[in-house]
Amino acid sequence: MTYHFAERITALKPSAIREILKATSDPNLISLAAGSPDSASFPKAEMQEIANQLFEQQAVTALQYGITEGYTPLREQTLERMKSKYQTGSENDDIIITTGGQQVIHLLTSVMISEGDVVIAEDPSFVGALNCFRSAGAVLKGVSMDDEGMKMDELEEILRTTDRVKFVYVIPTFQNPSGRTMSLARRKKLLELADQYDFLILEDGPYFELRFSGDPVPNIKSMDTSGRVIFSGSYSKVLSPGMRIGFAIGPKEVIGKMTISKQTSDVHTNLFFQMMVSEYLKQYDIDAHIAEIRKLYTVKRDAMVAACEKYFDKRVPFTRPDGGLFLWGELPEGYSGFELCKRATARLVAAVPGSAFSVDEDPNSRGFRMNYSLPTVEQIDKGVAILGEVMREYLAE
Amino acid sequence: MTYHFAERITALKPSAIREILKATSDPNLISLAAGSPDSASFPKAEMQEIANQLFEQQAVTALQYGITEGYTPLREQTLERMKSKYQTGSENDDIIITTGGQQVIHLLTSVMISEGDVVIAEDPSFVGALNCFRSAGAVLKGVSMDDEGMKMDELEEILRTTDRVKFVYVIPTFQNPSGRTMSLARRKKLLELADQYDFLILEDGPYFELRFSGDPVPNIKSMDTSGRVIFSGSYSKVLSPGMRIGFAIGPKEVIGKMTISKQTSDVHTNLFFQMMVSEYLKQYDIDAHIAEIRKLYTVKRDAMVAACEKYFDKRVPFTRPDGGLFLWGELPEGYSGFELCKRATARLVAAVPGSAFSVDEDPNSRGFRMNYSLPTVEQIDKGVAILGEVMREYLAE
Repeated sequence: MTYHFAERITALKPSAIREILKATSDPNLISLAAGSPDSASFPKAEMQEIANQLFEQQAVTALQYGITEGYTPLREQTLERMKSKYQTGSENDDIIITTGGQQVIHLLTSVMISEGDVVIAEDPSFVGALNCFRSAGAVLKGVSMDDEGMKMDELEEILRTTDRVKFVYVIPTFQNPSGRTMSLARRKKLLELADQYDFLILEDGPYFELRFSGDPVPNIKSMDTSGRVIFSGSYSKVLSPGMRIGFAIGPKEVIGKMTISKQTSDVHTNLFFQMMVSEYLKQYDIDAHIAEIRKLYTVKRDAMVAACEKYFDKRVPFTRPDGGLFLWGELPEGYSGFELCKRATARLVAAVPGSAFSVDEDPNSRGFRMNYSLPTVEQIDKGVAILGEVMREYLAE
Repeated sequence: MTYHFAERITALKPSAIREILKATSDPNLISLAAGSPDSASFPKAEMQEIANQLFEQQAVTALQYGITEGYTPLREQTLERMKSKYQTGSENDDIIITTGGQQVIHLLTSVMISEGDVVIAEDPSFVGALNCFRSAGAVLKGVSMDDEGMKMDELEEILRTTDRVKFVYVIPTFQNPSGRTMSLARRKKLLELADQYDFLILEDGPYFELRFSGDPVPNIKSMDTSGRVIFSGSYSKVLSPGMRIGFAIGPKEVIGKMTISKQTSDVHTNLFFQMMVSEYLKQYDIDAHIAEIRKLYTVKRDAMVAACEKYFDKRVPFTRPDGGLFLWGELPEGYSGFELCKRATARLVAAVPGSAFSVDEDPNSRGFRMNYSLPTVEQIDKGVAILGEVMREYLAE
């Protein structure tokens, strides 16, 4: 039997990272490939306490259908916190609770993109977003980065010569996979260009609160005066990813359309865990909790930077992120991140080849991504040591 | 600021039912408008017990990222149960856990439908499905029903004269909104036509286990020998809808593509509640639990049928469903279900006008849908009495 899938779907490949994660069942494998938080960061005891309260006091509500926009108290608490703490969201904005941050990307894409519309992204970028744009039939354009993030001259050149640009997708703070942070000047320039060339900005901020060093840079959304920015947030990296609770803050009209699209996608997000997060915000101090996660990851980030300095060939630069979950390395001209990762996997160390994040799916990307949040400090040292060995052998060829 | 939404989205309206549900905050309103289970059917104590076990023994797994296909034990348990109890699923099939049954519809649509492709559905049909097809730019064709379900001669006429039919969407058992069940002969005929005209069948089965009377009719999927049927199932009506746990059983190739699409939609379904359902299936007897729900709803169905017989004008026929959640009434020629429901809402009784379920969004649909699972027996009697009064006044004009 031949199945006639929609053409835009036929070429789509499963996420390389998810496939790698599925393959990493060998208990001896050291995975630097995931994007998962350290499970020590989950507030398990507090959540169990809240779960019991919910079952005893609000079970009928928590197990019944909810409304698509999300649990009202959680929407209000999240918006209030984002406004007061990060100036993110204004009286022209609304909020929707989503099934993880990924669904923000999906919903905005579904309401904005017709086949052939253009989405611009940092190159490399988060594969889950790129695949979402591809699956909607969008034309992808990548803009390269330096230490200040997306290069604005390169972006402007694309905007000058490209029709049908619907939105620019950026992860401005501790970007995935590069770990880089976009400078304040570039953020302002991006907003100017959005007005000038009439496009929206999808600001993906899953890690922005996980800063270990350096000065905070304001969210792009906090400077949005013309209703062009949709901010995607998530409780995955600060409470638990398995519960799938994210949110979008954006112009009322856009959030309204996204709500209609969510009705047809999954009706609403798991209500019990929406109430769980709401009660957590009410009964506990999430900022104190996030401060603990920062401490935990600072040690790991430091361990990975130190290990890269110790074990990597000096011809292989790597980023020194001020926060987030990832470090990005780049091999010299003529060498492939995919080959490096393949050889490392054979030695039971997993990292993700840059090709997975490449906007044009360049199989010869020289980059590779390493995660430090999930492995232990010991695994980080051992994993990077093995990666360094494999690298030396490869670069000697 | 003008937002340039994708054209296919611009015309889409929010689900009339969800909007009605949002509006029904008056505590005195009797809602016959919902599609929600009776909260007495939620196994609250058992779920609380399991939640505590999960927090104590498996919290690290339950709160961490999971795989897109779904929690492996739940996939195996669900497929095994559907195979052994309902012959639904073969060795050529696979299963994916979804964020509610709605996501099955969304995922199949996303992998199959390009703008202009045709989807055929029973008319009237579930608005959440119709809106999903619309939001993908599908062309919708409706086929009317009689007491044996979708009329096969009408379907065949459409198939003969229509190109690009990708799939036929049916809710063969206790259809939403009509409460009707497709006969075995029609199910077989539908499968024959699928082979002859080369299309897929999306069989939506959220209520099929909630039978109160009459003989069971096999699922269409149980007779699928050529890999044309995708069965959509859900734990919403037998455990809890708020948790959003559904599943699809279909040909491996189709489920594989749907899995890729799910990666870009929400990565995976809330893992804690996937494990909750898995443990429920392991530790408790779900069949005994469903038998209890059947008893609960039999009383309510009987109450609603009795009330309609007592209070409705004799020119208004209504269905007498053998299961499910809904009863469907139809006004005489020249009268509108919308007008009836509007007047009833003013008298604090909510039902859903047929126009909400109409494939061509006919505002003059004569039908209206009533739900008996959520209201109490007393509310059913009082609500139908008021609806009958409103109806008599309206029909006298």
